[in-house]
Amino acid sequence: MPMTPTEPRRRIPRDTDNDYSPEAAARRRDFVREQTGVELHHMGQFSQATDQLPGNIEHFTGVAQVPVGLAGPLRMIGEHAQGDFYVPMATTEGTLVASYNRGMRLLAECGGVRATVVDEAMQRSPVFTFPDALAARQFGRWVVDNMDGIRAAAEATTRSGRLRDIMQFAIGPLRYLRFNFTTGDAAGQNMVSKATLAACEWIRDQHPDHPAFVLSGNIDTDKKHSQINTLLTRGKRVVAECTLKAEAVERIMGTTTAELFRVRQISQAGAFIAGSANNGAHAANGLTALFIATGQDVANVSESHAATTYCQLLDNGDYYWSVTLTSLIVATHGGGTGLATQREGLEMLGCHGRDKSHKFAEICGGVVLAGDISLSCAVIAGDWVTSHDRYGRNR
Amino acid sequence: MPMTPTEPRRRIPRDTDNDYSPEAAARRRDFVREQTGVELHHMGQFSQATDQLPGNIEHFTGVAQVPVGLAGPLRMIGEHAQGDFYVPMATTEGTLVASYNRGMRLLAECGGVRATVVDEAMQRSPVFTFPDALAARQFGRWVVDNMDGIRAAAEATTRSGRLRDIMQFAIGPLRYLRFNFTTGDAAGQNMVSKATLAACEWIRDQHPDHPAFVLSGNIDTDKKHSQINTLLTRGKRVVAECTLKAEAVERIMGTTTAELFRVRQISQAGAFIAGSANNGAHAANGLTALFIATGQDVANVSESHAATTYCQLLDNGDYYWSVTLTSLIVATHGGGTGLATQREGLEMLGCHGRDKSHKFAEICGGVVLAGDISLSCAVIAGDWVTSHDRYGRNR
Amino acid sequence: MPMTPTEPRRRIPRDTDNDYSPEAAARRRDFVREQTGVELHHMGQFSQATDQLPGNIEHFTGVAQVPVGLAGPLRMIGEHAQGDFYVPMATTEGTLVASYNRGMRLLAECGGVRATVVDEAMQRSPVFTFPDALAARQFGRWVVDNMDGIRAAAEATTRSGRLRDIMQFAIGPLRYLRFNFTTGDAAGQNMVSKATLAACEWIRDQHPDHPAFVLSGNIDTDKKHSQINTLLTRGKRVVAECTLKAEAVERIMGTTTAELFRVRQISQAGAFIAGSANNGAHAANGLTALFIATGQDVANVSESHAATTYCQLLDNGDYYWSVTLTSLIVATHGGGTGLATQREGLEMLGCHGRDKSHKFAEICGGVVLAGDISLSCAVIAGDWVTSHDRYGRNR
Amino acid sequence: MPMTPTEPRRRIPRDTDNDYSPEAAARRRDFVREQTGVELHHMGQFSQATDQLPGNIEHFTGVAQVPVGLAGPLRMIGEHAQGDFYVPMATTEGTLVASYNRGMRLLAECGGVRATVVDEAMQRSPVFTFPDALAARQFGRWVVDNMDGIRAAAEATTRSGRLRDIMQFAIGPLRYLRFNFTTGDAAGQNMVSKATLAACEWIRDQHPDHPAFVLSGNIDTDKKHSQINTLLTRGKRVVAECTLKAEAVERIMGTTTAELFRVRQISQAGAFIAGSANNGAHAANGLTALFIATGQDVANVSESHAATTYCQLLDNGDYYWSVTLTSLIVATHGGGTGLATQREGLEMLGCHGRDKSHKFAEICGGVVLAGDISLSCAVIAGDWVTSHDRYGRNR
Repeated sequence: MPMTPTEPRRRIPRDTDNDYSPEAAARRRDFVREQTGVELHHMGQFSQATDQLPGNIEHFTGVAQVPVGLAGPLRMIGEHAQGDFYVPMATTEGTLVASYNRGMRLLAECGGVRATVVDEAMQRSPVFTFPDALAARQFGRWVVDNMDGIRAAAEATTRSGRLRDIMQFAIGPLRYLRFNFTTGDAAGQNMVSKATLAACEWIRDQHPDHPAFVLSGNIDTDKKHSQINTLLTRGKRVVAECTLKAEAVERIMGTTTAELFRVRQISQAGAFIAGSANNGAHAANGLTALFIATGQDVANVSESHAATTYCQLLDNGDYYWSVTLTSLIVATHGGGTGLATQREGLEMLGCHGRDKSHKFAEICGGVVLAGDISLSCAVIAGDWVTSHDRYGRNR
Repeated sequence: MPMTPTEPRRRIPRDTDNDYSPEAAARRRDFVREQTGVELHHMGQFSQATDQLPGNIEHFTGVAQVPVGLAGPLRMIGEHAQGDFYVPMATTEGTLVASYNRGMRLLAECGGVRATVVDEAMQRSPVFTFPDALAARQFGRWVVDNMDGIRAAAEATTRSGRLRDIMQFAIGPLRYLRFNFTTGDAAGQNMVSKATLAACEWIRDQHPDHPAFVLSGNIDTDKKHSQINTLLTRGKRVVAECTLKAEAVERIMGTTTAELFRVRQISQAGAFIAGSANNGAHAANGLTALFIATGQDVANVSESHAATTYCQLLDNGDYYWSVTLTSLIVATHGGGTGLATQREGLEMLGCHGRDKSHKFAEICGGVVLAGDISLSCAVIAGDWVTSHDRYGRNR
Repeated sequence: MPMTPTEPRRRIPRDTDNDYSPEAAARRRDFVREQTGVELHHMGQFSQATDQLPGNIEHFTGVAQVPVGLAGPLRMIGEHAQGDFYVPMATTEGTLVASYNRGMRLLAECGGVRATVVDEAMQRSPVFTFPDALAARQFGRWVVDNMDGIRAAAEATTRSGRLRDIMQFAIGPLRYLRFNFTTGDAAGQNMVSKATLAACEWIRDQHPDHPAFVLSGNIDTDKKHSQINTLLTRGKRVVAECTLKAEAVERIMGTTTAELFRVRQISQAGAFIAGSANNGAHAANGLTALFIATGQDVANVSESHAATTYCQLLDNGDYYWSVTLTSLIVATHGGGTGLATQREGLEMLGCHGRDKSHKFAEICGGVVLAGDISLSCAVIAGDWVTSHDRYGRNR
Repeated sequence: MPMTPTEPRRRIPRDTDNDYSPEAAARRRDFVREQTGVELHHMGQFSQATDQLPGNIEHFTGVAQVPVGLAGPLRMIGEHAQGDFYVPMATTEGTLVASYNRGMRLLAECGGVRATVVDEAMQRSPVFTFPDALAARQFGRWVVDNMDGIRAAAEATTRSGRLRDIMQFAIGPLRYLRFNFTTGDAAGQNMVSKATLAACEWIRDQHPDHPAFVLSGNIDTDKKHSQINTLLTRGKRVVAECTLKAEAVERIMGTTTAELFRVRQISQAGAFIAGSANNGAHAANGLTALFIATGQDVANVSESHAATTYCQLLDNGDYYWSVTLTSLIVATHGGGTGLATQREGLEMLGCHGRDKSHKFAEICGGVVLAGDISLSCAVIAGDWVTSHDRYGRNR
């Protein structure tokens, strides 16, 4: 039986003057060695300037070195992303880069990827509580009538955030509000928290009942997949589309468009009964690799990997394929996007800084499309396992 | 209007002799500079030996340096994880490490985290197709009757994988099979693909109708959240539990257990109507940071972040809190776990190598519990936004 | 092996002059006897005038006699439903009426049921198809800009229907529109189909691209439960609430409010992992019985049984309990509400005719609340099985 | 503001000697007239013998007369249902019978409906509670090791029920058990409650810790749709299939199989994003009408309407269509199946009594298939609204 340790906790060293110096990091690596016997030799080797790190990490100790592979060119004919892109993918999973690369080759031969952002909003979802449902309903009306004041209170806290609208969801004596903001080129989760808090405090002060609230009622739904995201968008809703030529599918992928469509019916039924976040293949793989390489908040893969694939076999045998990412959360400014390697990752895509987030979102869509096509063909053509034998660790 | 680029693709350079040399990586960085004008200065700086990389990446070009912060000690009183752990968290999101650290402090004061793996299985889900439902049903019976042969065929491909059982799901003329394997200390996705393919080929050869199959019918559900995972487990199902002392919650977190339980009802109802993968707070944050730091397949956050929280307010005012991660996919061997910084990350937890995956899974559970407690309290106590102002980039 | 029958089909007799006469019905009963040997003696006995039936049934042959029991009084302190109601419940399931009756008794002792309709809308969801996502997005904008014309076209087809708003959902090259109508005291499915068709034809004619459409893209979601209904309401969203006195729960139900709340945590977690339409008990039982007795479209139980329960244990030991029916589809006018016995069922609730649908919806909420309380207490107190032994067929 | 009524409740009259006499029913109708002023003239007219009613209803007061229409012949080439069937459908919704009838005509011209039951089980899902997850896991093991004793305890309470297996679901310190029974020709909900209670009491007595339990943890999931039902079956899982001839679809339905398949992609994507219980059309309509006419527990429509449609366009232009009902709950014995009109409804299908439930389930599948085909074609061909104008109340 495990026993409760009763020893006092040994606290991680912290430099109250400047906790972000190389020396502070080294002191923590020493502490780890003392406590665990493990020398953090490699973690201590980095070129990232530590004075850039405040705001990105606490108790900085070193870095994880994640291998970056190159895929491409990804040929985009999007609204904002146009031309050939070389995509940095940070991963430790063999075959991943090779597989995405193969999908990109097919896409280029078929004219490239159309892509566009069709909706965008970042949420915070406070809940106001009332004595009963009638009072909650009346409050809902009050919110509609006082949108100007609420918006002013929210937007006073931010330069780039704009309160688009507030959706309302009624359960018992509760009123869940879903604040939808546009957030410029930042992902914006913190921005909308701050703005929503200000709005809620304004509401509490102005409303005659001074109702209590909780800043999140879990329908935001921050850092987790949800059906509400699939329906109502979180971050950016981006569509990537292509028309695969029947001839090219046979030549490059070793299968046929008719077979792709036949199996598509099977995988759609499977996703439906499984209650899956994504009726396509493996969006999470490409997005994660791209997110790590470009300084995104990687935990957002939990939300961003949700997608809906829609395909049609055309009369001429070509194959229309679309992927709609319904809750893609990306930034080209703020967060980790300015760190050393991460900034390079964004820059090589021409996506660092202001007014780039739609372009970057379109590239994300293109990457996912390439990977889903490649894997789907491999499953059918029987290449899936053999390619892992060739590239993966089980070789 | 975007136009289709008609220029030929410029292919990424590849060294057919040894594509994993530092020179091959440098050539690709040069290529990126030529194509995009961007110098990959920082990506090119790493201590990771490139000859370790085959099997983990293709077109290796450099590394992403992801800052690692230290949280802890996390006091564990698990089945396998016992004692105080210092947790490496690789992230670019300010406040994250500080918040998890705060949760760990409270947990230590309350006696630490109990944790245990309650189920485990890794899946591949082929589909066999038949002329009609009756034939599919009869096939299902045949599979049950021929489990020995199927198991032998599957297990012949792997040293550590064991075929636990095969679940069956009938839709129309299709028979979806969900092969459940135990995979030792590897995550095992590739292992089970290979084993299942062998099993399916054996079935196709042995069954009198030689039925056609597709190796995945999308109910595996690889790299995506699904309700089937929540119900039937993917990877490891791990429970982390604690009993928070009422006094400690007030002193350290500035709220009360009664208030936590009251708000819990609100967040549960919210998660339910939102169709959320997780009725708790933000498992994805802690898992992602830990996954990057320890060489996990980070794309598995899409599945691993699903969780079910279950709490009770006790008669004495203390608060029982459990988080059940229903599809935690982790490895302590294979994949990226042997790379330079990643191995250090696992080693400082005493979790590198064989027979460590349960210990590591318990630590994952403890980390998630710490983070969910910390954020939930912050939302109620009003610290959420102010702490981001202090630690995050909007300061 | 089953064989395909090759005999010609024997068509059901139909009277082209008046297919709704008692004689036409008798002729079909004779036909059944000739074809199957079964005499439809009881089906042929009814007091319902057959000339009222056009618009409610085709090939009228007789009636099903469904036993009606009486429950109540249900004490309502709703917005529209106030006073004591005696509720007709048509069912063949023993124990059902007794169980609801018991819940109503407790509710009356605790001051009755508050109830209110907090939202309402009936949907039809056409889909317009485009060459790509960009064109679909631009169409979405056009719809917003042309709401006046769309509304006029829709409302020209109906006296009581009003187009409240149109929600939009983008997938690939598709634009799903969710038309939300208010429909007065009718359930309104046919009304909104007709109005939406007119609107779609207007759109197709007016939009420069004359886009093709399908009248339903399956997100209405007619005659099936869906998460979109739980979130966005279908029919009426009604909340029924009460505060159970601790003393009365012990005296009448044989359990305690603390125990109810403890078990509530278990049933909530269960509903969450099961992916359930309802985290309460058995709304479908009471609604179905009430629907049959009052001429509702009983198939709407598929949508109407979805509910979200939200409870809190109060400091004084009393228990706040709310049920929110998120997609309750009811009518007090039109459909089957004017038929002989059905009208009597509505009239005894004071709910037949115009301006009664909110009152009736509140009563539906009260009935569900009574039943959920009664069953939940029975499960805990151990009465569940014994009461079925007493009242049900297994006695 | 509504006020709490303070008058005493007027209790519904009850005859303690024989509450099922025609006189007792009449006394209650008189009571309704006294309380509400409404004369229940039609409800009081019925041919059903009241002495058959104990076990089906309490406080019997009269009957609802629900119009029954005739559809068919439904040509079945199932495993058990073979030949032409005339289907009684009890509904008040105009167009419904006509629409199903049209689908049956097409099906007969295309060779009829294949159908088969591919799985069956009725559930009760108790939860055992423990101090922690480890104890709960060990209990799970104990359950597996003691299946013989558990089965014996359960089966001692029933003649026809058999405990097939027990599935386990772990959340925190809870162990949810899903008892799967076969129940012969009864739906079996009460039977399995009683058997599971006996099993739980046996477990509590035999297990060394004498663990507490709750008889339902809400994953049964009784009287509500759930994803667990879609995956793991509740009641019967029945597949109905057909191959529609291209020529017949054009001639009878006025559309083409290619168009059906094209629109199918749209409705599948819609069902997926909506989080729908059914990716087909309107199973609930046909099932409800058939359930009322044949004495089923109509509230089970909440579960029974869940379905997964799977189609393929064949090379010759014909169209394979399957519907899988994943949680069809039906009985041919017990419950309301023996009442006067209900028994006639079952008898005209040759489905009353023992060993008929598979046959009846196949017919249910055939009915759903006919209705889904008819409506899907009507939506495409533009007949949907016009047919309601012709047959429905808005004519």
